[in-house]
Amino acid sequence: MNILGIEDGKLPEKRPRRGRRALLVGVKLSDMRIVEVLSESIEVDGLDATEKASKIVRKCLPLDLILLGGISFAGFNLIDAVELWRKFNVPVVVASKDKPNNIAVLSALQKHFSDWEERWRIIEKVIEASNGIHEVIVKPEENPLYVEVIGISIGKAEEILRKITVWGRSPEPLRIANIIAKGLSPAYFTLKNKFNSN
Amino acid sequence: MNILGIEDGKLPEKRPRRGRRALLVGVKLSDMRIVEVLSESIEVDGLDATEKASKIVRKCLPLDLILLGGISFAGFNLIDAVELWRKFNVPVVVASKDKPNNIAVLSALQKHFSDWEERWRIIEKVIEASNGIHEVIVKPEENPLYVEVIGISIGKAEEILRKITVWGRSPEPLRIANIIAKGLSPAYFTLKNKFNSN
Repeated sequence: MNILGIEDGKLPEKRPRRGRRALLVGVKLSDMRIVEVLSESIEVDGLDATEKASKIVRKCLPLDLILLGGISFAGFNLIDAVELWRKFNVPVVVASKDKPNNIAVLSALQKHFSDWEERWRIIEKVIEASNGIHEVIVKPEENPLYVEVIGISIGKAEEILRKITVWGRSPEPLRIANIIAKGLSPAYFTLKNKFNSN
Repeated sequence: MNILGIEDGKLPEKRPRRGRRALLVGVKLSDMRIVEVLSESIEVDGLDATEKASKIVRKCLPLDLILLGGISFAGFNLIDAVELWRKFNVPVVVASKDKPNNIAVLSALQKHFSDWEERWRIIEKVIEASNGIHEVIVKPEENPLYVEVIGISIGKAEEILRKITVWGRSPEPLRIANIIAKGLSPAYFTLKNKFNSN
């Protein structure tokens, strides 16, 4: 089974953050073996994450599942999970450790973004297509994951998530993508700063 | 058991390559679980790989073993494996898929580097400390690995290498470091070119 996990790296420390760039990392596991690691840079609070995620997905085909660690990356740069599903015909599972609070998200978008409606529409699309947020217990001793499913039943998604979660409650493709994205962010920022200051 | 694998990424495509930079990636596995991924940039054909590897090692302590995919990185940028062992008191195993050909290396160094003696001294140091190159069969159906050991017996090193080799004949810390370094090199070069051309 080929699963792609997509996660983001750290936000740059310098402010204002908006307009700066952060890492988006994809890790492809083939029967739990890491076979591919890819990265793209995305704009903090930008709207290029769907396009960049598509580039990563395309290079990782064939895939049985795309696993997103949320739909907001590098601030409020949203990945349109429905578009990924439609474009590649690969089911998408959004799995968050924190319970999504869409009311808080809507109010933050309205407060900080003039294009808040475009961003909110992506979130709504995902909510509609996924038929709600499910609490999934991947390990009896752990807190639940909050899961949205597109193009796959929640039952099947639960089965896969339990199988691919080894450490804590983070499915391996997301756990590994997260470690790589966080671990490589400092080198990425150092390099950017170096060239910016020339 | 905590093992750090260190590998390099792709060489930049633009020529001349010397003076350009490439990625050095470290992956720490704790009982086969990826717990840390770190990167540094090193100069192609430079002499900063030992210092950069030391930075990675320091952040990954405590460690039971350091595993290098060779001692030449990004061209002829050498990691002084003996220095790593002395500095951190952690055994070092150098494991290559290709049989090291030191005569060819010496002649290439003499041909292309005015400081070839300094570079050759590092290679000699490793040869002396490691007491020769051992052929290790990690899997009966695979070609051998060529292994040098510093601060650890070849018997113990063989035992560990067999345990941590799951796919092909590349021990997992090196296999994963390699995939990450190769996978992230394009994003790294894109970024560098972008800022260089400004």
